[in-house]
Amino acid sequence: MIKDLPPNTVERLSLYRRRLLNYPNEDKLYIHSHKLAHLLKINPAHIRRDLMLIGFTGDVHKGYNIQNLIDKIGKAIDCKHTQKVAFIGIGDLGRAVADHFNQKETKLKIAATFRTSKPPKTQFQEVTCYHISDMKKVLIKENIELVVLAVPRSYAKAISGEIIRTKVKGILNFTSVHLNVPDRIFVEDYDVIAKLEKLSFFTNTA
Amino acid sequence: MIKDLPPNTVERLSLYRRRLLNYPNEDKLYIHSHKLAHLLKINPAHIRRDLMLIGFTGDVHKGYNIQNLIDKIGKAIDCKHTQKVAFIGIGDLGRAVADHFNQKETKLKIAATFRTSKPPKTQFQEVTCYHISDMKKVLIKENIELVVLAVPRSYAKAISGEIIRTKVKGILNFTSVHLNVPDRIFVEDYDVIAKLEKLSFFTNTA
Repeated sequence: MIKDLPPNTVERLSLYRRRLLNYPNEDKLYIHSHKLAHLLKINPAHIRRDLMLIGFTGDVHKGYNIQNLIDKIGKAIDCKHTQKVAFIGIGDLGRAVADHFNQKETKLKIAATFRTSKPPKTQFQEVTCYHISDMKKVLIKENIELVVLAVPRSYAKAISGEIIRTKVKGILNFTSVHLNVPDRIFVEDYDVIAKLEKLSFFTNTA
Repeated sequence: MIKDLPPNTVERLSLYRRRLLNYPNEDKLYIHSHKLAHLLKINPAHIRRDLMLIGFTGDVHKGYNIQNLIDKIGKAIDCKHTQKVAFIGIGDLGRAVADHFNQKETKLKIAATFRTSKPPKTQFQEVTCYHISDMKKVLIKENIELVVLAVPRSYAKAISGEIIRTKVKGILNFTSVHLNVPDRIFVEDYDVIAKLEKLSFFTNTA
């Protein structure tokens, strides 16, 4: 891994890799930055700068070698060991991303999901769905380090209080509650309501 | 509504309002921009600029009148009629945000949820959960204009193909699939995998 990459660069590198893994023209070995930029609807200058930061250069005429770029991104952003992820209260979204996590190019693995309603011990793919009351025990037993949290407001405080007593290091927080966790845990907040109100605004003023 | 507000301003105004609605010191009538900025962990200059854009000013000594600010934000960003939202394949996340949508200060209302697995016609709060095969019919019948889409990759194309034959104007897209929809539909993409890979990076280099 390369230390000190800017957060937005890491996020974009992950996007580049996934797009390249799903690049439809499988006979093509190379791609130009402007083509990749077009596919992702972002500025080609961003791509060139991000790849410069990980020390990757293309051929002036042919562009970037796709497989080499995928490998280089992996070396830059993936951790060496497989890191386990749990989805807490997020149901189908877990399945939506599970496809990707089964590809060999990522070091992330979904290890468990938890529901606040009903107590089903069910499976999807090879992942067990537990009741939320078993969360702390399972997170510890499975050495889970990352969680995606999407539970009703009223649960958020109690659940984050449990999470801090496990080995979890990062929380992707979909609740609108501010989580009081120690500095050793990274929190990335995402606010569904603010995004919806923005969409609502633009679908009404356009 | 105020036309031509920048997208990020609209999103932040929504955040300010929600934070103020949940402001714990209910006896307080006023709040200073630096206090609100601290609660939201953002730059106070952003807040002052955003409120200037909607023509709202505070008292130099007392700060902003909280109730007036909540009202003013509503006038700036809410559409006049109630707009219906559906959650497609997202399970518990729908419940996580449903609390907010029951507050009177938003013009958004969750009208339906859809699941790709099992065919339950169940309720949460007053919202019916349908099977995905009924989606198009229900979206049309209920006049739903906004949807949150979080289904497995393999469903995404077919489902977005159905959505464009309804009155939906905006899609909050959690799938990692690029949606081919006409320009009249706004798409806001969110990539869970890129966020998780970013979290993974920072929990491993820190």
